[in-house]
Amino acid sequence: MAKKTKITKTGNISEWYSYIIQQADMADYSPVGGCIVMLPYATKIWESIQGYHNINLKKRGVENANYPLLIPQSLLEKEQEHIDGFSAEVAWVTEGGSEKLSEKLAIRPTSETIMYHFFAKFIQSHADMPLKHNQWCSIIRWEQTLTKPFIRGKEFWWTETHTCHSTKKEAEGEVSDGLKDYVNMCENLLAIPVIPGRKPQHDKFPGADYTTAIEAMMPDGKSLQLGTSHLLGQHFSKMFNIEFQDKNEKKEFAYQTSYGFSTRLLGGLVLVHGDDDGLVLPPKVAPLPVAIIPMWKTETKDKIITKAKKIKELLEKQNIDVVLDLAEDKSPGYKFSRWEQKGVPLRIEIGENELNDNTVCCVRRNWKTRLNNNPDLNKKEIIATADIQKQIPKILEEIQKELLCDAKKELDKRYSVAKTRKDFDKVIKEANGYCEAGWCGDEKCDEQIKEETAARIVLIPDKPKEKHAKCIVCGKPAKESVLFSRKY
Amino acid sequence: MAKKTKITKTGNISEWYSYIIQQADMADYSPVGGCIVMLPYATKIWESIQGYHNINLKKRGVENANYPLLIPQSLLEKEQEHIDGFSAEVAWVTEGGSEKLSEKLAIRPTSETIMYHFFAKFIQSHADMPLKHNQWCSIIRWEQTLTKPFIRGKEFWWTETHTCHSTKKEAEGEVSDGLKDYVNMCENLLAIPVIPGRKPQHDKFPGADYTTAIEAMMPDGKSLQLGTSHLLGQHFSKMFNIEFQDKNEKKEFAYQTSYGFSTRLLGGLVLVHGDDDGLVLPPKVAPLPVAIIPMWKTETKDKIITKAKKIKELLEKQNIDVVLDLAEDKSPGYKFSRWEQKGVPLRIEIGENELNDNTVCCVRRNWKTRLNNNPDLNKKEIIATADIQKQIPKILEEIQKELLCDAKKELDKRYSVAKTRKDFDKVIKEANGYCEAGWCGDEKCDEQIKEETAARIVLIPDKPKEKHAKCIVCGKPAKESVLFSRKY
Repeated sequence: MAKKTKITKTGNISEWYSYIIQQADMADYSPVGGCIVMLPYATKIWESIQGYHNINLKKRGVENANYPLLIPQSLLEKEQEHIDGFSAEVAWVTEGGSEKLSEKLAIRPTSETIMYHFFAKFIQSHADMPLKHNQWCSIIRWEQTLTKPFIRGKEFWWTETHTCHSTKKEAEGEVSDGLKDYVNMCENLLAIPVIPGRKPQHDKFPGADYTTAIEAMMPDGKSLQLGTSHLLGQHFSKMFNIEFQDKNEKKEFAYQTSYGFSTRLLGGLVLVHGDDDGLVLPPKVAPLPVAIIPMWKTETKDKIITKAKKIKELLEKQNIDVVLDLAEDKSPGYKFSRWEQKGVPLRIEIGENELNDNTVCCVRRNWKTRLNNNPDLNKKEIIATADIQKQIPKILEEIQKELLCDAKKELDKRYSVAKTRKDFDKVIKEANGYCEAGWCGDEKCDEQIKEETAARIVLIPDKPKEKHAKCIVCGKPAKESVLFSRKY
Repeated sequence: MAKKTKITKTGNISEWYSYIIQQADMADYSPVGGCIVMLPYATKIWESIQGYHNINLKKRGVENANYPLLIPQSLLEKEQEHIDGFSAEVAWVTEGGSEKLSEKLAIRPTSETIMYHFFAKFIQSHADMPLKHNQWCSIIRWEQTLTKPFIRGKEFWWTETHTCHSTKKEAEGEVSDGLKDYVNMCENLLAIPVIPGRKPQHDKFPGADYTTAIEAMMPDGKSLQLGTSHLLGQHFSKMFNIEFQDKNEKKEFAYQTSYGFSTRLLGGLVLVHGDDDGLVLPPKVAPLPVAIIPMWKTETKDKIITKAKKIKELLEKQNIDVVLDLAEDKSPGYKFSRWEQKGVPLRIEIGENELNDNTVCCVRRNWKTRLNNNPDLNKKEIIATADIQKQIPKILEEIQKELLCDAKKELDKRYSVAKTRKDFDKVIKEANGYCEAGWCGDEKCDEQIKEETAARIVLIPDKPKEKHAKCIVCGKPAKESVLFSRKY
């Protein structure tokens, strides 16, 4: 695809996003509208996330399982609020082989109902709890709105964890622990700073007591919800008869939670760190943290390639995955662009100078962003070949930190606190991100703001910057300090 | 579930299988007939298999991806032989949300068609190949026959690998490499000896040039197909326009393969190694290779538990997962049975004697089977506490080898070579397993045997024991030496 004018992130972020997702071989569009294939490059990132998260799940006593894809209609409809929330989005199987089924089967839009059918069998006594099952799978939600790879689609891949407890307090602790894991993972692995908090009651998960969530700010001033953790309380356990005998042999219904995140994280990763040249990946999740580009003339070719291979070997011994680009028919410039497009965090150049000086030349993928923050910066870092094994892991660690630090700065820039409606309108009009303000707690005020500004309440943050006295919409006493923003 | 008479493997293998699958917390039945939940204990085994196989895939340049679950009817029906083979088994989505879909969507029964739709876009030139994508997912086949957890079900989990090559020879090599990996994995990881070979043409994969497979013998004399590897040739590439420019700039269609195995492996694992007391798991895939059962009196309780904890710690430092059963309300005998039921390869008992002697007492899960082969064997092995870290890994390795060795002996007992129809009938009548014999190559002879004996050709083994002169059915000259057997 030859493009005449360069598609830029600041120019048209939506077009830019779709373009670089495809250019970086992350995803492609299925003939079924709204569905995608997640290609190997994206799958590798997702597998890194899975590996990281599985360790945390195990630490907290959560076990992986694989529940059925298909849910009978009667089971899905057992909890009224739940089915009301999902009925418009369910894909139904009505035929098996050549026969019409006697009961329609839903492809799971989420697995509460099918899992809790089983939980009722597994749980008899308080000794059977806590019960904590997780599954990694894809789910189908028949979205009526516009879809975008990873951000919103009819099929996506996710983790869903479901737990049962003998006390409400313990369940509340689980909701909170689950969300904390997500906060840490986003920051430490994906270098995405997120804001944890609670959803307003009118925006909670269908069938939950309350919903907590993490939100991340995107470069277009829109908030992206990256994970949720729900206290389900006894809503489902009463419907599904998840009953246990407590220590005094009294029967009680289990207290439940569910929490999850999806491949939407990959979308967030692209949006937050990417630039006009393509992806920018944090080293901890980059499928290839290092690209080595040898630059030879005929007389030095053999020596330079030998050196490049040796360096690849040294790094691989440290479990750093490296691509060594030996293509004969491509220029170094082409190769630079190609691996920048794929977001490879560190480029190592080896040419005549480096051969003679026993060095390598390193260029960080996030060099331009760093330059904005530090105009004295040199693009190129020269490292003695002998120091490779010591220096490269250090540089990769630095890049990881730089990405988080820069993303935090962006978030700070896009977080305003409004005392007056005038201040509020200015922030929202400029699409400048979050605006923290007071809210009386009435859904109508949220609705009104949405109609007037296209923004709405996205979160009641755990740690607002201020305690607000009045509702920014109606002026009545504020019950909560909330974040308003446009959202994905 | 209190059972009055013990369900035995030799008594009624089908009943035994269903019983221990549930008792060992491997699976449970979905309200949708023919579907199951794969519980954490089985999921852990499956994850071990995935981890092992992913390393092999990576070595051979295969990358993981995630393709869409849903396939438009028109795409599924592009290759005639393929859809003829699957049409009776497809689950169809006909409604999304509240609307009827304009085109029916199949839940993938296998992913050739959807993947090859994309491959046509990815491949332009010979330089784009080999292209090798794998995915781990669940698939739906609307089975009309009797289902059994892991062995045959409407939903199962699997790995499917799909590759494109620029020459037929390279594709044939891939088919063979894929199957070799499966043979090695079954033997080295699961301790299941398998026979590799080719399927008769009338039993090949719908749309393939030919199908190769691995078959394993079960204790009831039936053969279980555990993996397949197909040469698809150019059947699909011609239908899906997977075309490339070769080195001479001539257009040609790609040569394709596909190969896979499923959670049926877990069924094979249970059937091959299990005994009347429950599962018997090879240490390499056992979620818990070691169970420590402390046996205390009031006066020694603290010391014995302290010692048990120390041993657990020592083993965990060696990355051996250990369960230490400290339940107060259960007897040692109950605990022995419980962990035997779950197939834990090694039990470590720590009581008064072991405390005084600075030893532990080890019992191998497969002790009874070993006893049959070596009547002088002691059930208990006493090991000095100081030698734990040296001895336990060694014993686990030995158990792994013993299981494979015993399974090989069983296979040998159930492999006969028949020269005459009389010999053949005797083997088949006694349900004694494989009967190797000559075959003329005519499907009618296979059909005839099936009608007369319930056995049929399951494989044309790569290495038959003999070259047979005549077809065992019609007496005409034999083209192949084949294995007859009843099958799952």
